[in-house]
Amino acid sequence: MILVDPLRTGGAVPDEVKKRLLEFVDGYSVCAYCQGDLHKITKPNIKSFIEELREWLKAYEVRLTHGARESFFALFFALYKSRVKEGKAAPVIIADGNTHYSLELAAERAMFDLIKTKVGAYPEYKIIEEDYEDKILGVKKKYGLLPALLAITYPDGHYGNFSDIKKISKIAKDYNIPIMVNGAYLIGRVKTDMEELNADALVASGHKSMASSGPIGLLALNEELSKDVLKKSKLHGDKEVELLGCTVRGLPAISLMLSFPYVKKRVEKWEEKVEIARYFINKAGELGLKLLGERPHNHDLMLFETPQFYEISIKRKDRFFLYKELKKRGIIGIKPGITKVVKLSTYLLNREEADFVVSSFKEILEEG
Amino acid sequence: MILVDPLRTGGAVPDEVKKRLLEFVDGYSVCAYCQGDLHKITKPNIKSFIEELREWLKAYEVRLTHGARESFFALFFALYKSRVKEGKAAPVIIADGNTHYSLELAAERAMFDLIKTKVGAYPEYKIIEEDYEDKILGVKKKYGLLPALLAITYPDGHYGNFSDIKKISKIAKDYNIPIMVNGAYLIGRVKTDMEELNADALVASGHKSMASSGPIGLLALNEELSKDVLKKSKLHGDKEVELLGCTVRGLPAISLMLSFPYVKKRVEKWEEKVEIARYFINKAGELGLKLLGERPHNHDLMLFETPQFYEISIKRKDRFFLYKELKKRGIIGIKPGITKVVKLSTYLLNREEADFVVSSFKEILEEG
Repeated sequence: MILVDPLRTGGAVPDEVKKRLLEFVDGYSVCAYCQGDLHKITKPNIKSFIEELREWLKAYEVRLTHGARESFFALFFALYKSRVKEGKAAPVIIADGNTHYSLELAAERAMFDLIKTKVGAYPEYKIIEEDYEDKILGVKKKYGLLPALLAITYPDGHYGNFSDIKKISKIAKDYNIPIMVNGAYLIGRVKTDMEELNADALVASGHKSMASSGPIGLLALNEELSKDVLKKSKLHGDKEVELLGCTVRGLPAISLMLSFPYVKKRVEKWEEKVEIARYFINKAGELGLKLLGERPHNHDLMLFETPQFYEISIKRKDRFFLYKELKKRGIIGIKPGITKVVKLSTYLLNREEADFVVSSFKEILEEG
Repeated sequence: MILVDPLRTGGAVPDEVKKRLLEFVDGYSVCAYCQGDLHKITKPNIKSFIEELREWLKAYEVRLTHGARESFFALFFALYKSRVKEGKAAPVIIADGNTHYSLELAAERAMFDLIKTKVGAYPEYKIIEEDYEDKILGVKKKYGLLPALLAITYPDGHYGNFSDIKKISKIAKDYNIPIMVNGAYLIGRVKTDMEELNADALVASGHKSMASSGPIGLLALNEELSKDVLKKSKLHGDKEVELLGCTVRGLPAISLMLSFPYVKKRVEKWEEKVEIARYFINKAGELGLKLLGERPHNHDLMLFETPQFYEISIKRKDRFFLYKELKKRGIIGIKPGITKVVKLSTYLLNREEADFVVSSFKEILEEG
């Protein structure tokens, strides 16, 4: 089967890791030698894995979480307590207009208003970086305080667009507001780190982009935010309150760890992945399938406008026809029932497979 | 190997389930047919599993969470917003004096003060149920409001004591305060439900007691608390805010589901488990190992006072000697380095294995 599901291509676990995971299936499989903190367990050696991640991401601290959204919430809620409640910041987070719904939910749960920046016009839908500054000034005017955080989805999960992160982090620094990068589709695909991104906090998703069983994510922090987020309990001095003392106490932690050597290698080949993506976009364009999102495209996530498929679904009176036709050809991961747009990821495709998917599209269009 | 680790005996996954889990190792393995809510996915059929759980626990709603502590926090924080912030309840939760540290952390994270009831004397350390009422009156006096919640650990994870839950739930009803039962060592071992327990909320742990890979837990709610905890997002109307829209998006959800038929059967044999526990306690008592906690004992979790082992550790100048001696005999799960008390679970033992563990203790004591 050829998998093109944007949600699942980056989380496929290497076969050799799968076999080794069997011994960690039982509940609490990582806890036999725990001395009180998941991140300090040395058997299995989660401690040295966390240290590796810290260096790899150039972070002050890294923690395992239950996923990217749980990382957002841990950070947001810590900021609510340390800044908003203390009257140091407005109860507002500013995010890019293409942000993921889970970030909006995390903000809502943490009692923040989320303000989104403007998004540019069809067909690229690139966010307007300068709008962060306008939104900051609006918050300042309303509350007499600056927003607690700027958040940027990099790339966003809908179009696979990369914004100009340097512009945004410059605005953040100018106003001295911390900036969090949502790298759910970045970390584990692209070799980068907090310094290069100029990020104060960086969020990753194990099941989205780090070849890991889920749910699991990362929260990487600079020194200042570490103080807020990783505060120790007043009652149990060795436990971190915002992590409830322990997070991923089981198989997903081992999965992320065992896949990590493989992930470190695969990020070196990111340019090849972008080449395949662009190759695919060109070939699909020749069929009349129009890419939404930035051009040239810089990510394997892509969204096509496909009125042609929609027309066929009307003609065939079957909104699932595309899903079925592709599945018949061994291609899975297109959202069943949706034909006006097609969202996919070319991350797992080589050139031949890319050709095969395009020629399948072609056949389906010709069959009508 | 004979496993006696209190943390791990109830979370051991049946072999036939392990094999079937392999196909769900990849990240987002449960999401291919998601229409927006984990609990409504029909392929794999999580939806009907949730329905089964709901009936089994006699709950109004059941949700999958990342574990018992995450269930506590979701409930506590929802109550903070709906009751404390609204001036309807004091920012206080009253829990039994034997509560687990994770519940204290969840309360701390949710910005509650946690007040614990008194605990009775050595050697039983049973909690004083009546003290809930004294503590309620103290809160009322201080805040002019009632506490937001009563919590009871049933049984507690240290001694394996069951308190008189009828007394406590009567106090809760008398004052019209919701009551939450922490059933991390109950649900999946003992056949019971919310009606029998008189609980408004019931928390379970998949990796502790439901033969499941971790981390995963349950939050079962009555109708009233469902309204608070499962509120939909203002921005994304189909998503539940306190669950961040989705919780266990991966293998642990499948693990809990596939183990559930096995769990439903095994709870029918709970009386046999208690018999083995009592048999073990008697035999260990004959060696001079004194049980702490209630007698007769009603759970496989048990804690012994073992000054004899401590003396040997001094003599041998090796605080790990007991761990090593047991491991040599194929018995694992005793906390390495601790000898003054021995905490264990007889859940996975049959009578012969119980005899073997006791006779191993005997040999070690005789060797000195």
